Amino acid sequence: MANKSRILVIGGTGYIGKFIVEAAAKSGHPTFILVRESTLSNPAKSSTIDSFRGLGVTFVNGDLYDEQSLEKAIKDVDVVISAVGSGQLADQDRIIAAIKKSGNIKRFFPSEFGNDVDRTNAVEPAKSTFAIKSKIRRAVEAENIPYTYVSSNSFAGYFLRSLSQPGATAPPRDKVTILGDGNPKVVFNKEEDIATYTIKAVDDPRTLNKVLYIRPEQNTYSFNDVASLWEKKIGKTLERVYIPKEQVLKNIEEAPFPVNIVLSISHSIFVLGDQTNFEIEEPSGVEASALYPEVKYTTVDEYLSAFV
Amino acid sequence: MANKSRILVIGGTGYIGKFIVEAAAKSGHPTFILVRESTLSNPAKSSTIDSFRGLGVTFVNGDLYDEQSLEKAIKDVDVVISAVGSGQLADQDRIIAAIKKSGNIKRFFPSEFGNDVDRTNAVEPAKSTFAIKSKIRRAVEAENIPYTYVSSNSFAGYFLRSLSQPGATAPPRDKVTILGDGNPKVVFNKEEDIATYTIKAVDDPRTLNKVLYIRPEQNTYSFNDVASLWEKKIGKTLERVYIPKEQVLKNIEEAPFPVNIVLSISHSIFVLGDQTNFEIEEPSGVEASALYPEVKYTTVDEYLSAFV
Repeated sequence: MANKSRILVIGGTGYIGKFIVEAAAKSGHPTFILVRESTLSNPAKSSTIDSFRGLGVTFVNGDLYDEQSLEKAIKDVDVVISAVGSGQLADQDRIIAAIKKSGNIKRFFPSEFGNDVDRTNAVEPAKSTFAIKSKIRRAVEAENIPYTYVSSNSFAGYFLRSLSQPGATAPPRDKVTILGDGNPKVVFNKEEDIATYTIKAVDDPRTLNKVLYIRPEQNTYSFNDVASLWEKKIGKTLERVYIPKEQVLKNIEEAPFPVNIVLSISHSIFVLGDQTNFEIEEPSGVEASALYPEVKYTTVDEYLSAFV
Repeated sequence: MANKSRILVIGGTGYIGKFIVEAAAKSGHPTFILVRESTLSNPAKSSTIDSFRGLGVTFVNGDLYDEQSLEKAIKDVDVVISAVGSGQLADQDRIIAAIKKSGNIKRFFPSEFGNDVDRTNAVEPAKSTFAIKSKIRRAVEAENIPYTYVSSNSFAGYFLRSLSQPGATAPPRDKVTILGDGNPKVVFNKEEDIATYTIKAVDDPRTLNKVLYIRPEQNTYSFNDVASLWEKKIGKTLERVYIPKEQVLKNIEEAPFPVNIVLSISHSIFVLGDQTNFEIEEPSGVEASALYPEVKYTTVDEYLSAFV
């Protein structure tokens, strides 16, 4: 444990933050989480908080918007991982300022955990959302803060579990709607694996000032192939409804907020193939499953088997 | 036409902006729209642009982020209506600065067109989204800019057409999922009517420095009652699946972005009843159907009939 960096997670009770805190603590990193009093007493967060207590996570009372608490929390650790939600992405400039001031942080992971925002062709409104993350990257680089950007691609718990059918919580058994022609390759990663790779990267010099792409071969599928895989598992052919790409763009234009955000992100992933339409290039990019072959990640095939 | 204010719409090709531009032009207001060159050549926007041309709308080349174009556009009109999307809400401070500088604007409508953001009990992440609109309200007031805030409640085209079933484009015929107990009252307004009321308010001294609530009696229903109305129309009983409010909160916590935004907005509307759990109070608030009884708005009953 002496060699393992002390990690502070900001946004640690959120969707991906929870998995990151858990992975950090389980891998023996002294793990700290910045939390508000109100979060600790929020019934919807109680099971998460209890689980963190069981793992020996240190709770630091504070808030992104309370400069003093933020600076104090950062002063006590080596690495900061931000997993703040969409509403706080732009406000990560506060974390950057506090890291700069403290001078002791060896690595900063800004809140990313999705498409590579510097390699996206997304249309609005996803474009503006992704641009906020790009802006934060540029701010990190301008301050010469050591960083890793985790491009984790699609969360399996959302995009794979539902086969990306809006509102579904299991893969469909009758009909599946496919954006575009279903041919671009997409990457689906289980949240626990994303967290495992992220924590592996913390003390790894090979991920210093790089984009860490999580693009394991067995998790890279076209939508058509993932639908076929599911059909094979359930022994049934689904009705496939394709929405032509021009229609998808029109649907985005015609949808109100926040549905237009959902649709425009899906357009980037499934129609444009923004997760796989570029090569991972050294020296700026490295791939997680290649760096850490010892991680037995959950494959798309294994993931879908749980729903048969 | 001489007495009708010249109106500039910013965000006029967006979801609600389109209806506002159309209502403005049809009611005889000299109507201007701030648009980028790229929007004019965007195929997904072409039918909207063509329809605006047919209505005699004046296109002003420019952009919220191009100060000079914004100031010039504002200088030429009497009233500014912003219908910018979620990603640009915070950047309306640019419009406020330009209005302040020009000194000729008689009324500003910031981008609202939803719940009253000062009367919401929404949880995160909707809370932060609504807070951006509140902050803009305070900035407008601090600069003493004459304003109207249009609290239009739920867009019928999204919330009523689908009976708020994620991904649906028509009301369900078998099963309906209901957040909470389905008893709080919700207001559903057709987009065209929202635009009509907005334009009516432009030159009306009764809406100066007020919140204009669109809460017509015949469009105010509990979810249970709207489901019953639909069942009566189709002559069939739907299976009703209720999600208890604690579970809704847990689902919000566990959903990734942007689904958590969708869910937390629905929670505010359907579980908390944030559109109707307060009285519309003079002097700060006025109600549209009371001010303009001559507007024959589309009722929920009429709206649903189109889908039978």
